[in-house]
Amino acid sequence: MVAAAAVAEDAPGGDAPEDGPRDALIVFTPSGRRGRFSIGTSILSAARALGVDLDSVCGGRGICGRCQVVQSVGEFAKHGVSSRAEHLTAFGLVERRYHEKRAPLAPGRRLGCSTNLRGDVVIDVPPDSQVHRQVVRKRAEVHAIRVDSVVRLRFVEVARPDMHDPSGDLRRVEAALREEWDLADLRCDLEVLETLQAALRDGNWRVTVAVHGERDIVAVWPGLKDRVYGAAVDVGSTTIAAHVCDLSSGEVVASAGAMNPQIRFGEDLMSRVSYVMMNPGGEREMTAAVRAAVRDLLREAAEQGGTTPEEILDVTVVGNPIMHHLLLGLNPVELGQAPFALTVDRAIAIGARALEFGLHPGARVYLLPCVAGHVGADTAGVILSEAPYQRDEVSLVVDVGTNAEIVLGNRERMLAASSPTGPAFEGAQISSGQRAAPGAIERVRIDPASLTPRLRVIGNDAWSDESGFDADAVTGICGSGIIEVVAEMYLAGILDEDGVIRAEGAGRSDRVVRDGRTYAYVLHRGDIEVRVTQNDVRAIQLAKAALYAGVRLLMDRLGVERVDRIRLAGAFGSHIDVKYAMVLGLVPDCALEHVTSAGNAAGTGARIALLDRSSRSEIERTVRRIEKIETAVEPRFQAHFVEAMAIPHKTAAYPELAKAVALPARKPSRERGEGEGGERRRRRRGRGR
Amino acid sequence: MVAAAAVAEDAPGGDAPEDGPRDALIVFTPSGRRGRFSIGTSILSAARALGVDLDSVCGGRGICGRCQVVQSVGEFAKHGVSSRAEHLTAFGLVERRYHEKRAPLAPGRRLGCSTNLRGDVVIDVPPDSQVHRQVVRKRAEVHAIRVDSVVRLRFVEVARPDMHDPSGDLRRVEAALREEWDLADLRCDLEVLETLQAALRDGNWRVTVAVHGERDIVAVWPGLKDRVYGAAVDVGSTTIAAHVCDLSSGEVVASAGAMNPQIRFGEDLMSRVSYVMMNPGGEREMTAAVRAAVRDLLREAAEQGGTTPEEILDVTVVGNPIMHHLLLGLNPVELGQAPFALTVDRAIAIGARALEFGLHPGARVYLLPCVAGHVGADTAGVILSEAPYQRDEVSLVVDVGTNAEIVLGNRERMLAASSPTGPAFEGAQISSGQRAAPGAIERVRIDPASLTPRLRVIGNDAWSDESGFDADAVTGICGSGIIEVVAEMYLAGILDEDGVIRAEGAGRSDRVVRDGRTYAYVLHRGDIEVRVTQNDVRAIQLAKAALYAGVRLLMDRLGVERVDRIRLAGAFGSHIDVKYAMVLGLVPDCALEHVTSAGNAAGTGARIALLDRSSRSEIERTVRRIEKIETAVEPRFQAHFVEAMAIPHKTAAYPELAKAVALPARKPSRERGEGEGGERRRRRRGRGR
Repeated sequence: MVAAAAVAEDAPGGDAPEDGPRDALIVFTPSGRRGRFSIGTSILSAARALGVDLDSVCGGRGICGRCQVVQSVGEFAKHGVSSRAEHLTAFGLVERRYHEKRAPLAPGRRLGCSTNLRGDVVIDVPPDSQVHRQVVRKRAEVHAIRVDSVVRLRFVEVARPDMHDPSGDLRRVEAALREEWDLADLRCDLEVLETLQAALRDGNWRVTVAVHGERDIVAVWPGLKDRVYGAAVDVGSTTIAAHVCDLSSGEVVASAGAMNPQIRFGEDLMSRVSYVMMNPGGEREMTAAVRAAVRDLLREAAEQGGTTPEEILDVTVVGNPIMHHLLLGLNPVELGQAPFALTVDRAIAIGARALEFGLHPGARVYLLPCVAGHVGADTAGVILSEAPYQRDEVSLVVDVGTNAEIVLGNRERMLAASSPTGPAFEGAQISSGQRAAPGAIERVRIDPASLTPRLRVIGNDAWSDESGFDADAVTGICGSGIIEVVAEMYLAGILDEDGVIRAEGAGRSDRVVRDGRTYAYVLHRGDIEVRVTQNDVRAIQLAKAALYAGVRLLMDRLGVERVDRIRLAGAFGSHIDVKYAMVLGLVPDCALEHVTSAGNAAGTGARIALLDRSSRSEIERTVRRIEKIETAVEPRFQAHFVEAMAIPHKTAAYPELAKAVALPARKPSRERGEGEGGERRRRRRGRGR
Repeated sequence: MVAAAAVAEDAPGGDAPEDGPRDALIVFTPSGRRGRFSIGTSILSAARALGVDLDSVCGGRGICGRCQVVQSVGEFAKHGVSSRAEHLTAFGLVERRYHEKRAPLAPGRRLGCSTNLRGDVVIDVPPDSQVHRQVVRKRAEVHAIRVDSVVRLRFVEVARPDMHDPSGDLRRVEAALREEWDLADLRCDLEVLETLQAALRDGNWRVTVAVHGERDIVAVWPGLKDRVYGAAVDVGSTTIAAHVCDLSSGEVVASAGAMNPQIRFGEDLMSRVSYVMMNPGGEREMTAAVRAAVRDLLREAAEQGGTTPEEILDVTVVGNPIMHHLLLGLNPVELGQAPFALTVDRAIAIGARALEFGLHPGARVYLLPCVAGHVGADTAGVILSEAPYQRDEVSLVVDVGTNAEIVLGNRERMLAASSPTGPAFEGAQISSGQRAAPGAIERVRIDPASLTPRLRVIGNDAWSDESGFDADAVTGICGSGIIEVVAEMYLAGILDEDGVIRAEGAGRSDRVVRDGRTYAYVLHRGDIEVRVTQNDVRAIQLAKAALYAGVRLLMDRLGVERVDRIRLAGAFGSHIDVKYAMVLGLVPDCALEHVTSAGNAAGTGARIALLDRSSRSEIERTVRRIEKIETAVEPRFQAHFVEAMAIPHKTAAYPELAKAVALPARKPSRERGEGEGGERRRRRRGRGR
């Protein structure tokens, strides 16, 4: 593949003799790789020989512009190199043609394939010329995504057919790929064969081939093609999200979301499973619906990103086990009943045609592995994104949805479980609950003296006591709002530690009202009244106790009393104020600064799997070694659950936490009765009374 | 995989001590393999440990009946064994159940899995219990087909799902396949996944898995399934033939044929290519037509064989390059013009779904490789069937159709070419020509004195001068008939050596008649008159000269003056009387007894590829090393062609040949003029004048 051979670096060189030097030293930055090459060797050839990460699609023909480099001119004592401008061949015809006809080259930029050595040089490979570039993720604390797509574009010049050597077009394409790109033992899709003939002739025997996994020829285009796309898809029970990425830069060119049309078969997962149980064959309707939704979404996202579905060659998918099975056309009924048997748990790589995604005929789909019957490919995505298996400290990663998926561990050992929180955290089963959408109350503060609430809704930054707040726009309360209001109700003394709305509140404020045989707290009055009922508080207690009990179970199994860091993933985890999650005791003890939101970690995991081919085997290996805990059959789960019903659940972190949630203007509402632990008293004091 | 371990044969054994022997010697016939095993070891376990070819689908559960063996009772001095009846456990419960419930066991037959060693024995493995059994082919001179299908059935008991170990169904199936059948790193079709859940539960966790190539899980059924099928398909320009075979016995259970519906787009290949040229996209119509025809044919054949398309799991296909490309959906236009570039030459393995064959969803299709633009997968089939590459002597294999595919060589070197014979040998472009079908004249003898013909038609064994012949049933003359009549016309002196119908014949018989400016020979008078015109003779001369010239070209290249054996393949080769082919000089010198018909060798090749998995890599390797000769660009082709126009072409074999075709009652018609070679005179004399 590489013509120029590196000669030993200690071979004679240095200053040019009478007839000029015979070889020269090249030092690449930032890699620091160095070697001696014959005068006249191209920078690209030297880079390849030294294993320097310098991109090229066209194979050194000066047309793709991927191998741009910059000479560092000057004396480099550290490298022992005097890198003079005249040590490279002058800006030549090929570069001029590229600069004028294809894309302007920034000052100082050279095409590595068309620039040759004349003497010692230091050559810098800018990030955009590296194959394995990295995409910086939004959240600084998480590692950047390495970009090394499983799909690679390879431009080749193919021998013309010859009656004396009647080999097929494909064989000659393969010969060119072997010759120019060192690719061997390739397979070729029938769909590619259908287009191969025309592509070769339209491109005058110069074509760009897309190779998947250095193994499968999945597409071919006439001439040079230097950009293809991939998509990371997160199939949730409620919404489906897709991110279309440039497979060489890793950049997200468009993101789009849509409702999961399966909602018409049932709002939550279990009602969809019930639908299949009641309507044999119903899984086929749901499969068709979700596939069509993904297809439409990908088309929409592609168009937003200035491309087309035909340019999408690779897709990664995450989703919970039921969504995963329905997307694949597998009956989900077994997942709705013990022993919750998955049909397949391992990662799946198939043609996108099988899933009717309407993409390029050679496009492939990769579904991340499922961990267990309740812990799906979405959790695998979270694990890949958060990578707790790469850390020494013990991480707790929680993804809250209808169930809470819980992952606990470090590089030594990883555990996972699902806890049956029910949908309360998503605003379901709450009297005024709703999804996180404009109009939903998401922030709440209750004055402990007057019991008057201040609140904020999604879609408006103004608090309810500020100008700009529109009281009529309030439509309900979302999951993170529920957490805050229940926590604030407790902090304001409206709730007792058993979660009972105290009758005496009704005497202190007209916000506490009788509601049948119990009491309710009126959070908002307007077109729509939003109240928090005793049943709502119970639902949150049950949910948080289930979550906490699941976490404790894993901690017991791992043998730890504390975790070093907590990451809250998913929409709920993104919106929640972690302080209130701790006040309510959703998660165990942890220093507050180490409890953070992980954002849409499942989607990020899908994006990592899309952009970094090595991450696929990484997550497959990791998932296999995870110990799965089935909470339903663990006798200690019930004990933990009962213990965790109280608000707040007692933990050592509360003093710090109480300080964090203290409201400056707050006055003591009343003295609590005796029987509380000293710890809780300390917490109260810490709150600044 | 195998529990029982062979112990060294020289371990103590022999007569039973007080407490009985601890191990025993077992000798298997016909393999001769032998070893000592612990008392109680099953015959199947011992066979596996010794690598003896003893079949089993159910893995030793006494339900499939594939491991039947017969004990040879007596003293076997040769083996040093006294094989007594009581040295095997008695006919037991498992065998009785199999015998009564499943299929009766023939006397003496035992189930190897359920019969255990008690002492030294000689055990015979009958052919039907061998995995690698052989199917005897019809023609004795050709090697038998080894039966070792790429699809294997594996019965397994799968662990039930367990909440404490939430692995997917597939993982547990794979574990069972690894445990019981030593199969690892399997892949699984999505289509199988769709049926896996139900199969496992319907079969109460006992299923039969079909594994393709020890790599792909392609089907799963509840319970035991011990029979699946494959099909060998020969897609000809005119007809399509399919043979459905039992993949374990290799037996052909049904054969069916149909017209290729592409005929409506053009009778011959070139007119179909023209159709595509004139009607862009026309290749898609033809692809749909041929796929539908194969689908219908396979359904018909499956039903004839007492099975269904859903039980067909593997298909092999042969066909000429244009049929090959059209079946795959590849545009054939490039194959109709120089340089005759194939899109793909190598063998193709794809899912049968891609070709819309309507079989089991996991069925696979294997298309044999093409040799060159004019020498297709049909020729690969002929080569596989004839296996000239396994012989020391030089074989010439000729498959005559619209073109003649010519293969020449031996184990050292192989050459192939296609010669543009045109369709005359198929009865086309002949004034009274027709396809080989009932009513076509296929045998002709002309009395050299009276010039009166005797003839026989397809579908009637009576000669025209015998009772039972129906003169009105004659419809035309087929390819082999044409060869015979032209040869007989020459032998009777009606033709001169340049192929001219002599005017003087008209004076000798009313069978020779004026026909415009030339003469014709009236072969048959009746409802339809069948005559052989001067143009007909010319067409045959051109065809036979093209064939001969192609053969000579390969002989030149190989550097041989004679070939050791000649095999005539295809329908033409099956029907032709090889003597007449030699009289006309279609093929070069060869001892007459070594010139034989190969039957439908292409179809046989497809059947070999279907039944013997190792034959696939064998033909792929062979085809790659074949040297392809393009007759159109070989300067010597024209010279050979011109030289070969004369009848008969002079060769050293004619004396013998003349003897072979001599007709006892024949009288000299007239003395030939001077100028003939002595050799030809010898031939005449040899004819017994």
